[in-house]
Formats: sequence, structure tokens, C-alpha cells
Amino acid sequence: MTSDSTTSRAVTLQDIADRCGLSLFTVSLALRGDTRVKPATAERVRAAATELGYDPARNQVARRMAMLRHGRKVINRVVALFVPENVEEVTYYHRLFWGVLHGLRTEGYAMLVNKLPLAKGHPSPDLTPLVRQGEIDGIIVPENPSADAQVTALRQSGGRLLPLVSLIWPCEDCSSVMADDEGGMYAATRHLLDLGHREFLYIAQAFPNALSRARTAGISRALTDAGLSPDRCLHTMPVFPYWYSPPNGARRAEDDNEHSLVRWLRAHPAVTAVLGWNDNAALHAWYTLEGAGWRIPADISIIGFDDTTPMPGPAGENLLTTVRVPLRDIGAEAARLIVRRIHGDLADDECRTLPTTLEIRASTAPARGG
Amino acid sequence: MTSDSTTSRAVTLQDIADRCGLSLFTVSLALRGDTRVKPATAERVRAAATELGYDPARNQVARRMAMLRHGRKVINRVVALFVPENVEEVTYYHRLFWGVLHGLRTEGYAMLVNKLPLAKGHPSPDLTPLVRQGEIDGIIVPENPSADAQVTALRQSGGRLLPLVSLIWPCEDCSSVMADDEGGMYAATRHLLDLGHREFLYIAQAFPNALSRARTAGISRALTDAGLSPDRCLHTMPVFPYWYSPPNGARRAEDDNEHSLVRWLRAHPAVTAVLGWNDNAALHAWYTLEGAGWRIPADISIIGFDDTTPMPGPAGENLLTTVRVPLRDIGAEAARLIVRRIHGDLADDECRTLPTTLEIRASTAPARGG
Repeated sequence: MTSDSTTSRAVTLQDIADRCGLSLFTVSLALRGDTRVKPATAERVRAAATELGYDPARNQVARRMAMLRHGRKVINRVVALFVPENVEEVTYYHRLFWGVLHGLRTEGYAMLVNKLPLAKGHPSPDLTPLVRQGEIDGIIVPENPSADAQVTALRQSGGRLLPLVSLIWPCEDCSSVMADDEGGMYAATRHLLDLGHREFLYIAQAFPNALSRARTAGISRALTDAGLSPDRCLHTMPVFPYWYSPPNGARRAEDDNEHSLVRWLRAHPAVTAVLGWNDNAALHAWYTLEGAGWRIPADISIIGFDDTTPMPGPAGENLLTTVRVPLRDIGAEAARLIVRRIHGDLADDECRTLPTTLEIRASTAPARGG
Repeated sequence: MTSDSTTSRAVTLQDIADRCGLSLFTVSLALRGDTRVKPATAERVRAAATELGYDPARNQVARRMAMLRHGRKVINRVVALFVPENVEEVTYYHRLFWGVLHGLRTEGYAMLVNKLPLAKGHPSPDLTPLVRQGEIDGIIVPENPSADAQVTALRQSGGRLLPLVSLIWPCEDCSSVMADDEGGMYAATRHLLDLGHREFLYIAQAFPNALSRARTAGISRALTDAGLSPDRCLHTMPVFPYWYSPPNGARRAEDDNEHSLVRWLRAHPAVTAVLGWNDNAALHAWYTLEGAGWRIPADISIIGFDDTTPMPGPAGENLLTTVRVPLRDIGAEAARLIVRRIHGDLADDECRTLPTTLEIRASTAPARGG
């Protein structure tokens, strides 16, 4: 802002309309880049605005104030995405977030990123003023948004309930985009059954939640459909938390996990296949079993979930059979949902479930003796 | 906004000050969360604001309009980060971006993310209105910001030149945060010299730029310091673009790269060490050489750069000796710089260079016959 422009009378949209011989409405659309205005006309409007010294900052703020005064909803084309703490090395979240960014951009929206305050002592910047000023039109949160007090408070801080979409998590009072976890595990188990496997170990999430229940249900349904009893053929072992992250060769105090896996499999020779809660759990199992003398897949087949962490083979190729979760598509779909909700085109509890696909690679083979 | 609050007289900060028996200044600070106000006082102010029905949206916009009218700078605590196209699987950029997010959050700033429009047909959301409304206080751009017309235009669109910081790239007219690339390559070469290596192959970036020049300079300086001639002892081979990405075992039409590496090394038996432009180039070389019968590191030592892509060993441990670039710290430092510049505490061309560190792992060993 030069001081000149703040002391003289402000140039208005009407001044531009008068200069161009156009309606106020057309000028307004043209300056907002609306595609209903012909390019040549838009160019003429922009030229007149520049020539007259039209100050969009002053006019935008004035316009927003007028809209607030009349109780009208201002759409600012900005969505806030919350990201969990400590996921900066996690491919899973990167794909979700890039999907959201891509989707919002396609819709012409910008993405504001904020961290969920899971770590103590690191308060997030308070977005409440931005919500109150109407600068954020909606919120996207991975995992369970209703469990987070900050998100809940933020959502209500603008004087109306802000649209919210959850990523890969069912949500009571908001829209969500999920993966077909149940169908993915069904396909993985079906594949193993086709290879002649009959007893399975599932390395499960330590603390069961909606996703892990869906995955267990998928395995059980495949077994039942094949005439097998899940109670007899499906064994479950909880994974230690550090198996969530990619293996790095470091030995831990919690290595009981590895000892117990080896001990357990030696005690259950009928088990010829291992299903991992995610790729990392599958890879930890792989390194552990190979270290104890098993050959993958000759002695035991291994399947992961997510398709986020590869198991590199002799030429760098990925050896791990896994269930691919379309994380980018889930993020992009969440972006589309939030924009529809911002414009009031969707119900608050509109949900989507995207299909998963089985990626068959080198870690699965016919059951030994099968 | 309820229609009630828009028709009745707006509650002002003065009303809250009168109710609490405090100054207007203290009330204003308290509602902005300024730490100079005692927690108990701030609590009392917030309670009074709620009780009186103070509407921050209405008042924030009015306040911003008044500031604009008086030509004063409004700080909104939002910085825009631009990200290149097609880096969603690239650890290098993820670390930079998480560093920026962490740094901005520590400063109480929110991060707005936008893509650089490198891909045709995918225009980014236009941030210009946000800049003009004063909602973005500064811009952070990876690589070379002055080369991007969109960034340059955006920077100037607010009526004043918006502060800009570049990540890992020198910049003519803005601040930048760099890594000590020269020092990193010096340390890597020094390490190989200490192991008895005397002739080196550097797999260089295909298109030399400021960073690749710094790295070549580091190698040359280490050789010169050791009494060797870079002209005689340092050989350079450009890398094919697909060697920039992690190996995935796929054979390409451009596999001439691999053939030429094998052919070249057979023709130059005195070369016992390979330095990669980045970790991915080093890993491509590793798979290629192992596939052709070389043993790493017994026959040939390999060093990467960045410490972003591991070479997993028998237990998942990373085997690759590499130069670690403090990407998270670079991102966080860029956040600190932009906030200082927004507050006018730093010159426009203030730059930082952060140190790199050599991570010695299993891919380097004494030169054969050395």
C-alpha cells in the first residue's frame, strides 16, 4: 500500500464498470477470474483496474466485511489439513497428504497445513482466528477427528459448524473417505488359499481399532468362504510398536517380539503364511525369519498391507506381495468431498470407500508340502 | 454469524476493557494470546468477551481494514510454501517441508502449501488474492525462486515486495538456507583417501548447477590437499535422469547408462571408488556393479549424498556410506528466517549455510591392493 492510495478516494468496481461500459456483475466476475467472462473482456477489465489504480486489498476486505455484516457466507478457497506428529518419514501419510494437495489444487483451493498437537510442549499455531475471520472453509483430518479436542473446538469456532472430512477413519458426525480394508485382506487370504496354504499367522495391530477389525474380518470371511474355520486356521499375534516403522537393522530391548515369533512358528509347523498388519510389520517378520533360517517364500509366504515400504531384491525390485491402498486417491477424494460440503452440495455424513488391490510379487508361493 | 449479532451494535474491545477494568491495550494483547498478559488476566478477558458476545470475525476484519486504511502492515502469521511437481515420493523434499512446518509452528505461524506449476494443464490455485488481502506474510520456495515467473509475480502482487526465502538454492535478491555441499564432498573424498583410494569416478548431475558445482569443488579441493591432481584422479560421468529416483529393479530403454558404467570401470581399473550425486545414483551404481560381478565394498567403494535412501543389508540395516544433509534443520531455519524478515529484523539477502556430516557405513572399505 502506498500512502497515496490510502488517503485518496478508493477506486471502486463501479468506476471500472463505468470505464469499460460493463455491468458491475461482469467486472466482479472478471476480477475473480470467473470463467463465465470471455478472456478478452477479462483482459480489458484487468487493464482498466490497473490504469485506474484499483486496490484489491482494500476492496476485498471491504467486501468481506459487508458480507459478514449481512450474515452471508464468505468462501475463501482455503482448507486446513491436520497432520499427526512424527510422521515425517512415513510414506503412508505423505501419499495421503499429496493426494489432498493435488485434489484441492484441482478444485482451485489452497491447503493450509497444521500439526495435531500429539506431542506435549509443541502447541500448534492457533488457527481459531483464521476460522473466525472466515479464511478457512473446511478441515481435513487423518484418523479419528472426533477424538481430538483441538479439532472439535476449531470446527465450532467460526460461529457455524465448519465442514470436516476424515481420512481413512470412520467418523460419527462428519464425512470420511475410507479404503476397503476388509476386501483387501479378503483378496490377500484368497490368494494364499489358492496357493494351498491352510493355516495363517496374522501379525496384528497391538491396539485393535476400526481398521484392524475390518482387516481381521476380511481374513475370516475368506477362510469361511473356503470352508475353513477361522477359530482353527487363523492365529493372531500383536505387533510391537517399533514394527510399525521400516526395519533399520537396529536390535531393540523389545526383541522378544522376534524371539516370540520364531518360537511360535517353530511350535506351529502347520502355519505356512504370515499376513502383516502393514508392510513394515511384514518386513520385520521377513528379516526375523530369514535371520532364523527360513527361506522366503520357499518355506513361508509373507504378505504386507498398504504397498508403502518395498522389500528390495537383487536388482532393487520390490519382492513383497501386498495389498495396495490407494492413498493418493483417498486424499484427492477427501479434497473433492470437502469442497462439495463447503458449497453445501453434500450431506454431512457422506462417506466414500475406495477399492484396494492385491499386488502379487515374489514373497508368496505354494505352501511347502501343499 | 447469527443474524442477531449482525443487526445489534457490535461489542467492541472497549466494552470488554470497561467490563474488566483493564486498558484497551491489555485487552487487545490478551485476545491475541500475547504472553505479556498474565494467564489469569487473559482468562478474565476471554470470559468477559464470551459473556458480552464479542464477535472476533467482525472485529478482526474491521481491524484489518482500519490498518490497511492507515497504510499499516498487517501480520497474519501465515507463510506460503511452494512445492515442486512430482516429488510426492521424494524423501529429500518431505524432510525439507516437514522442517518448514515444524519451524513455522514453533514460531506460531501456519503453513499454506501450493504446488509450483511445472506440469502443464494443472494451474495452481491463484494465491494472489490472499497476498493482496494480506493473508500471506511471506513465501518459502525450494530451489531457484527467481526462475519461477509465478513466484516472482506473486511476490510483487501485494503492493509491497513480499519476503521470500529459498531452500537449498542460492538466490540473488532473497534470503536462502543452504547445505555445505562443498564441505560434504570434501569429507567424503577425504574418507576415501584415508582408505587408500587414489582414483575416483563421480556420477554427476546431468545438468550442472550451483549445487553440483559446489560438490565437484569439494572433491577437487580434497584431492589437491592430498597432493593429487583432480585432472588426473577425478573422472566424471553424467547420470541419466531415472537414476535420480530410487532403483526399483525395472530395466529401462536407457540402460546404456548401466552398460556404459560397467564398460567404463573395466577400462579404468585404477578407479576403486564411486561417488554419487545423490543416494539414488549411488544405489543404481551399486545394483549395476553387483549385477556385473563386483563386490561392494571389497572390489569397489561407493558413497552417496543426502542420506535419504537406504541400501538395506541382511537385517534391514543401511549399508550406504553417505553425506547427511540436515534437510529438516534447513527447513526449520528457513521458517525462522522468513519470520525474522516478516518482522523486519533481517536484511533481504541474509543467508545461512548449515553443515553436512559424513555417515560412515558398510559401503566403503580400504582400496583393493591399497
